[in-house]
Parts: sequence; C-alpha cells; structure tokens
Amino acid sequence: MSTILKGIAASNGIAIAKAYRLVEPDLKVERKGIQNSEEETKRFEEAIRQSQSELETIRDHAKKELGEEKAAIFEAHLLVLSDPEMTGSIKDKIKNEKVNAEFALKETADMFVSMFENMDNEYMKERAADIRDVTKRVLAHLLGVELPNPSLIAEEVIIVAEDLTPSDTAQLNRQFVKGFTTDVGGRTSHSAIMSRSMEIPAVVGTKEATKEIQNGDLVIVDGINGEVHVNPVPEVIESYKDKAEQFAKEKAEWAKLKNEKTYSSDGHQVELVANIGTPKDIEGVINNGGEGVGLFRTEFLYMGRDQLPSEDEQFEAYKTVLEGLNGKPVVVRTLDIGGDKELPYLNLPKEMNPFLGFRAIRLCLEDQDLFRTQLRALLRASVYGNLKIMFPMIATINEFREAKAILEEEKEKLIQDGTKVSDSIEVGIMVEIPSTAVMADQFAKEVDFFSIGTNDLIQYTLAADRMNERISYLYQPYNPAILRLVKMVIDAAHKEGKWAGMCGEMAGDETAIPLLLGLGLDEFSMSATSILKARSLIKKLNRSKMEQLASEALNKRTTAEVVELVEKAVSSQYSH
Amino acid sequence: MSTILKGIAASNGIAIAKAYRLVEPDLKVERKGIQNSEEETKRFEEAIRQSQSELETIRDHAKKELGEEKAAIFEAHLLVLSDPEMTGSIKDKIKNEKVNAEFALKETADMFVSMFENMDNEYMKERAADIRDVTKRVLAHLLGVELPNPSLIAEEVIIVAEDLTPSDTAQLNRQFVKGFTTDVGGRTSHSAIMSRSMEIPAVVGTKEATKEIQNGDLVIVDGINGEVHVNPVPEVIESYKDKAEQFAKEKAEWAKLKNEKTYSSDGHQVELVANIGTPKDIEGVINNGGEGVGLFRTEFLYMGRDQLPSEDEQFEAYKTVLEGLNGKPVVVRTLDIGGDKELPYLNLPKEMNPFLGFRAIRLCLEDQDLFRTQLRALLRASVYGNLKIMFPMIATINEFREAKAILEEEKEKLIQDGTKVSDSIEVGIMVEIPSTAVMADQFAKEVDFFSIGTNDLIQYTLAADRMNERISYLYQPYNPAILRLVKMVIDAAHKEGKWAGMCGEMAGDETAIPLLLGLGLDEFSMSATSILKARSLIKKLNRSKMEQLASEALNKRTTAEVVELVEKAVSSQYSH
Repeated sequence: MSTILKGIAASNGIAIAKAYRLVEPDLKVERKGIQNSEEETKRFEEAIRQSQSELETIRDHAKKELGEEKAAIFEAHLLVLSDPEMTGSIKDKIKNEKVNAEFALKETADMFVSMFENMDNEYMKERAADIRDVTKRVLAHLLGVELPNPSLIAEEVIIVAEDLTPSDTAQLNRQFVKGFTTDVGGRTSHSAIMSRSMEIPAVVGTKEATKEIQNGDLVIVDGINGEVHVNPVPEVIESYKDKAEQFAKEKAEWAKLKNEKTYSSDGHQVELVANIGTPKDIEGVINNGGEGVGLFRTEFLYMGRDQLPSEDEQFEAYKTVLEGLNGKPVVVRTLDIGGDKELPYLNLPKEMNPFLGFRAIRLCLEDQDLFRTQLRALLRASVYGNLKIMFPMIATINEFREAKAILEEEKEKLIQDGTKVSDSIEVGIMVEIPSTAVMADQFAKEVDFFSIGTNDLIQYTLAADRMNERISYLYQPYNPAILRLVKMVIDAAHKEGKWAGMCGEMAGDETAIPLLLGLGLDEFSMSATSILKARSLIKKLNRSKMEQLASEALNKRTTAEVVELVEKAVSSQYSH
Repeated sequence: MSTILKGIAASNGIAIAKAYRLVEPDLKVERKGIQNSEEETKRFEEAIRQSQSELETIRDHAKKELGEEKAAIFEAHLLVLSDPEMTGSIKDKIKNEKVNAEFALKETADMFVSMFENMDNEYMKERAADIRDVTKRVLAHLLGVELPNPSLIAEEVIIVAEDLTPSDTAQLNRQFVKGFTTDVGGRTSHSAIMSRSMEIPAVVGTKEATKEIQNGDLVIVDGINGEVHVNPVPEVIESYKDKAEQFAKEKAEWAKLKNEKTYSSDGHQVELVANIGTPKDIEGVINNGGEGVGLFRTEFLYMGRDQLPSEDEQFEAYKTVLEGLNGKPVVVRTLDIGGDKELPYLNLPKEMNPFLGFRAIRLCLEDQDLFRTQLRALLRASVYGNLKIMFPMIATINEFREAKAILEEEKEKLIQDGTKVSDSIEVGIMVEIPSTAVMADQFAKEVDFFSIGTNDLIQYTLAADRMNERISYLYQPYNPAILRLVKMVIDAAHKEGKWAGMCGEMAGDETAIPLLLGLGLDEFSMSATSILKARSLIKKLNRSKMEQLASEALNKRTTAEVVELVEKAVSSQYSH
C-alpha cells in the first residue's frame, strides 16, 4: 500500500531507492533456567561463529570501500570475540548456573564493560565500547533478530532511522546512500545538517518513518517539499523521476554561478558566505562559490579530547583557515560551549536549563585563561588573512565591553612582545538573545558588525527549546516577531554604517531569503552546499519588491500568513 | 569583629536580633570497627534517650506555641524512636558486625527508608521521611554536633540559613523570627516571597551568611538596602535603631492610605492590586488596601495531591475569591504548570530545558480535558464577581485564538445547559515571552488586556535562567531592553483602548515603579504587603516627570545607567 509521510525538508533534492532501516532491533534479555547446558553452550558457540564470519565480511568490505582506518574497528571487534577470557566466563556461567546463553552473555559482558569503563584510561574505555557492540551482534544471533550492518550496504538505498548520530554516519558508504528520512529532528538537528553537507535529500521529523517503512520498500524522499512516499504507484514514481531530472538541471545551472558575485535582479549586492566547523571545510567553501566564511565555529578544537587546546594548536588552525580563504573575510566565533555542547574536562555543573545557563561568553568572561588563550591565538593568526572576531551569546552591552577590553589587553601585550597583529580586525557579536536585538541601536555604536544567530534567537524569542519535540510547533523562523527583531538589528547596523549578517539556518532558507533581502541583510552565512542555490535565487529576486514584501510581512499576525505572502510573491516574481 | 555582608533586599524593614543558624551540621558517617560492642550499644542507647527527651520538649513546646497539628510530626518521630524493630536491628548490627553505632544506625535507617519509599502508598512514604529526620537527630547526638531545633526558638532571632524551604518555615514561630538572611536566592525565591508575605525584613543571596555568622552573633538585617551587619559597633546599632523607628513611622503613614485610590502627585490614577495564591490570601488583600487581584495563581488547586481537582472543587475556590473581593476585579490565570512547577500525577516527560518546555498554555491546549474543566469552573463562578481570565505563556496569536475558542465553546455549552455565565468577562494574556511583547500591537487587536509577567519575561529576554546562581547577574529588571518591551506592550494596549498591567515582582519594586508610572502602566499587581508602600510612593511622584524619566531610561545602554538615573530623579522629586 502506498503511504505519504510529512516531515521537515532538511536537505534539497529528490531521491528514489529501496529503504534500508538503520534501526536497532529489540535485544532485551530474560533469565531462563535451562536443562541441557551442553546444548546451550553449542548454541552460544554457533552464535559466536556466525558473528565472526559476519564481522569478517564487514571488515573486508569496509577495508575495500571505506579504507583501513574505518575497517580497524571491526578488527577490534573480532579480537573481542576470540578472547577466551570472556567467552570462557560465559560458558562457565551457562554450565554452573544453568542459565540461557543470552543471559550469561549479557551479565558477563556488562561486568566487563563496567570494569573497563571505570578505568581511568581512554584506551580501556574504548574497549568497553567494543565489547558493547560485539555483545549486541552475538545477542542478535542468539535471539534470531537482524542487526543493521550499514557498512555492508552495496546498493543505492534510502536510510530510514529514528535519528542519525555522528557514529552511525561514519560507517555509511556515501556512494550508496541516496537519501535520509528520520522520525525525529528538525532543520537544525545533526542529521539535517549532515544531509546538507553530504548534499543528499533528507526529510526529518516524520514521526513514523521507522514504523511505516520496512526494509526493501521503495521510497521517494522529496527533500524539496518535506514528503516521503512509501511504495508509491508508478505514476508518482514517474513524476518524481521528472522532478529529479529537473532538479539535476537546476543544480547544473547553479554550478555556473560559482565564481560570480551575488546580485539581485535589480543590481543590489549581498555577500554569500559559509558556516564551517573545521579547517577541513575550506575546500567545500571554495568549491561552492563561498565569498568567505561567516561563521567559523571553534568548538571542534575543544571537543573529543581531555584537556584544553594549546595556544599554538589553535593558532595553526586559525592560520590554516585564514590562508585557505586567501584574503576573503573569515568571521571566527569565540568558544560557544555549554548549553547542549559539553566539555567533560571543564567540569561544568549540571544545570536545570542549560540553554538559559552558564555558557559561551558567560563562561569565557569567568574562565579568562581559557578565553585569553583563544584570543591570543586569533590575534597571532590575524596577519594571515582577513580575520573578524565575533563573541557569542552577548546579552548586555557590559558583556561586550568586557570581552572587547580583554581582547585589547591581549593585543597590547602581543604588540609589546614584538608579535605582529593585524590592525584592521573587526570585532562584532552574535545577536541571538532577544535583549541584544532590542538594544541593537545602542550596540551598533560600539560593535563593528552583527551576525544574527537565528537558531538561538528563535528559541529564546518564543521561549521554546528547539530540541524539544513536544513544542516544535513553536520553532517559527517566519514568525513576524522574529522578522521584526531581525529588522531592528539590520536597521540599527546601517544607521551606524555597520554591516549585519546572519549565520543561523534561516540565512540559507528559500522562504526566508526573499524576506531577508527585503529587510536589507548584507551577509548571508549558510551551509556551503546551499550557497549556489541561494545565489541563483537572489539573482531572480527584485530587491525593491522584496522590500515591499518584507514590510508587509512585518504587519502579519501569524507565521502562516507570512509564509503564504512570500510564496505568492516569489511565484509571481518567477513568472515575470 | 564586625562584618558587613551585601545581598539582595528581599523584604523591607530593619531587624536587629541574635543570630539563629538554621544550618544542618555535617553528619557524615564512617564505618569503624569496634572492640567492645556492649559499650557501643550503650552509647547508642544514650543517644536514643537524649533524642527522646529533646523530642518531648520540642513536641510540648510546639503544642503550646504552634498548635496540635504541627506538634503531631514530633509525636510521629517519638514513635520511630521507640520502635523495637529498628532499634533492635541496629543493636544486632553493632554486636554481630562489630561496627560503630553511627554506621549501624545509618545503614539500618537507609534500608528502612528505601523500603518505605518504594511502597506505593503515601502514608508509608511519610514514614520514610520521619525515619530520615529521626536518624539525623540520633546521629547528631552520637557525633556530638548540634542540630538546629527551630521550633524551640523562644526569643527574638534572625534566621541564618543557606536557603529556606517551605518545610523549614512551617516549624518557625513567627512571633520570634524578626528577620532572615540566606546564602542563596534572589527576589523571586521562595524565602524572599515568604519574607514579604510575613512582613519581616530579609536579605537573601549574601553568598556567605552561614559562613560569616555564628549562633548568637548580633545581626542587623537591613532589608531596605540589602545589607547584613554582623556584630556591629554600638554606633551602627544606634543608627539602625533610628532607621527602624523611622521605618515604623513610615509604615504607620502607609496604613492611612488603606482605603484610598492611587493617584500620582499630578492626579494620574493607577490601580494597585495583589498577587494571590489561594483563597486564604483574600484577607491580606483587603487589609493592605488592594484594589483587586491582578494575579490569582490557580496552581494551588492542583498541587500536593494525587489527581486533578474536580470542576466543583475549583468552582468553589473561584467563587470564594470572587465573592471575597466583593465586585473588585479578579484576574485569574489559568493553569501554569510545568517549568519549575511539576505535577507528579500528570506524568510529564523530563525535559532538558523545562523553562523552555511543554508548560502552561502549551500543555493546556494539548490536554484539553484538564483545560476545559478549569474554564467551566471559572465560567460558572463568573456571576459571583468581576472575573477576568488570563492565559499564561502565550507565544503566538494562534495559541491565544485557540485558547479563546475553547473558552467560547465551553461558555456556549454552559449557556445551552441553562447555567448562568457573566457576559462581561474580559479575556487577556500574560506577556512573558519576548515574541508576544514584540507583537503586542497585533495581539492588542484581539485580547482585552495584557498583564506583563516580568519574572519570565526577563529570563527569556536575557536568556538567563532566573534560578541559576551562576548567571544571576543577568537577571536585570531595569535593563533598557526590558523597559523597551514593556513600553511596546503598554503603547500597543492603549492604541487599541485596552489596559496593561504587570504581575511580576517588578511591579512592586521601588526603583521600577517610577519608570512604570512614566511608561503608562495602568495596573500594578504585587505582594499584598507591598501595596500601601507603593501607593505612598506613587502619591509623591509626578507622572509627567516620570514620563520624561522613562523616555530617558529607554535610551540608556546599561542597567547601571538606568538605576542611577532613577535614583537621581526620585531623590530630587522627594526634595521638592
């Protein structure tokens, strides 16, 4: 039967392929008494054998398709399986306690896992993770359920999952993954951001993809309209094949815009830049025609390790990015940790509302050593390109003054020590807290630029956690309240001769771009892969008409009215 | 040595008395092997005897001073002490395991506590709490440390505590408690709100009151300036005695304003009304000259029980309040649960950021049975007075429309069933979410009134959890961003001929009142005990001058600048 699921269009394009469920089966284990422990031991040994042969296949396949590095993890799993200490304990347990193999395996594995986890040693902790993975595989064989083996995928598929974690996707062969659909998540969830960076269509937040879609179902992911078709009728497939072709043509058109500047149809220029997370992302920026970097998130330097990064380490990373951009602007955001991003080694206290808590600039102003180290690294790197420094989560003018004073102090110190520092570094702030948007006219007298962080601005303005599924209806980028705050920020900047950018997801959103152009936004910072499409869109838009559109939108009462207005206006512009 | 602690002035007035530390001593227990179990058992029996005699004294005292009901808890504690099952187990443990009495007591008590706590029975759960309390007392005797016995207080004292919980204060004889000072908390913490309702001076959030103040130290709590003097020199004591006298005179002056309306010195009228939590609070509203109720929190009906209150039960409560206010306006806020206020029987999911979560109107619009029951009770009660209904946590116009449509439906149904319903019920909203303040001009076309909830509005506007001590510097009522949002709301209301009130803590705050008068606020809703003082203040203020003041404040950049401006202006007005 054919079904249509509605979700959030997270990444553009059309994909048609068979479904592959990346869903963990139920591996619950019960303790059962057994009569014949010899037979049970055989059952266990058989499961081990099956797991071994499966893992060998996976390892060989991974080696060929994904490289040695990714195959190594399966080598480690095989070692666990052949460890006589663990398998011996399990067999003893089956024999001595007369319990089923599943229970003996689970109990023994849990003991080993907790033993390794409690060791103060990263290597041992990884062993705990290996044991956990291997146990799942053997359990699946014992229970007769199927475990997904994403690294074995060898045909084109649509991945169907509850949600996708970074470790899930590390195992995927990107060549075969044509699209994603997930039960949970919104436009800013990990899976959504990744689908855009992989440039594959995705629909997230369908609520029931894993319920409605079985392995092998034919699935169409319509990442343009946020729809997933399950086992569609032939006419629908045909019409989507046409759409996919159309989309491919469009993409080819976009590619021609790579080395162009960005002008509206009536000649108003804006800047299209990229959000990046590590120096590795520079290539994508260049390949996608980015005119610079509008947001360089520096958290990657601090994560996945057990101590703060040194000044030199940071310096190298900043220098690489600045040189890689070859004189194009690079806006670096200082550390934005806390909230949903934790750093275990900082030992931050648990908070009741981390999104309203001690994070980003609040933490940096208190932990000044950490902050000064980052600022010194940035200042030293500043001579290698066009650096702009941006402070996150600024709520009051005093916070900005304090942060800037610290920057000036470090600059002075470096200069006195004979280190070269650029004398044209712009210093600006993220506008992601309502108070700052409301006070933008005053801020504009002191900062060099604004970059509106819509992901947070929306959640604070509507008092709705953007990760909380129950109130996802309140995450409304087009709510007139948001547009009004954006307007306050842009107008305030222009009045003082400063520029205003945006580095939230909204800046790359098709419905938002006409409004933002109309509101006068100077710089749009988005996923690198959205840049060419945005450039193509803006080329078709008439700036003056978008000004009218924006001013009408500001007087609408609801998000739905704004969306309707934009859709009508844009389609009429296209037809002219 | 004399010390001065700075904190937050939570409740007005001056108190001078000896310190009483309501601080739990360190009751950590170590396991120690013992030689002579007979001696150890004697030590244990002696601690039991001491605890018994202490509890008898406390019980008798409580019976006399606080009534039978409050004494009953100590009766229950005595029963625990004389329970041979528990004391027997402890003695066995001392004898058989050769361990110290402290350890035997702790281990045994923990076992009993967890046993009772896991029973699905409220009575048994209370026994667990009793055992925990009694164990502390016996442990204190064994360890030779002193446990505070607040119900034995028989002389005037200043309570010094880390924080005060509702159960702490239930045991206090209010006659002897002259003031409070605490380490933590802000103007909206439980201890602060309670100190105002008890009308005793309090300074909270001193950070180190429990560190700096010992039992018996002479302490001055200056609830006007937020200072605590520890062992001051005689001159300071004298000067504070004068100030206290002055304050008493002022209070006597305020009392004369009880039956007056509220006018500024140049004849502009505003309304001073009260925030209440239960029908019992009506008396305080009347006695303090309240012109109505600006916020009736209905959560009390839902809390401290194990199922939802019935429609009739709610009806009675609303009727009592409406009749008690005798035609004066009563603004009832519909259920505002979630966030920091939980209802165990609703089984709401744990959220990562409850303040940005599924709460208040968000919950009511989903759990419509609950909402409709409350609305029906309100509608039925509406004929007994001047009812206004207010929805909390409205973020979008659609939410208001939906809530109002449900109200209209229930009204229609009641009328069709022949139930009388007032036809002049105003329906308004709390403005406590930034989006709603920003969209106030549009909301004003649909609602009958606004009431600005500053406690939440401030925390969302500055993205700072108001319960989080680490970022308490961001809880800034006088931040120009807040004043600008307040102005948007008031101007929007007036443009559509509606009224705007405020029911957050800010409405009763001396520094805020001149600004709010200047911004044109129509209704100020505050703790009943703040009303007369506010009326006295407003009588001295010139409305037109406050308008100028407010418009200057809107153009300041920082909170400090606003406060300075107000202080200068108010002191100059007083001197004229």
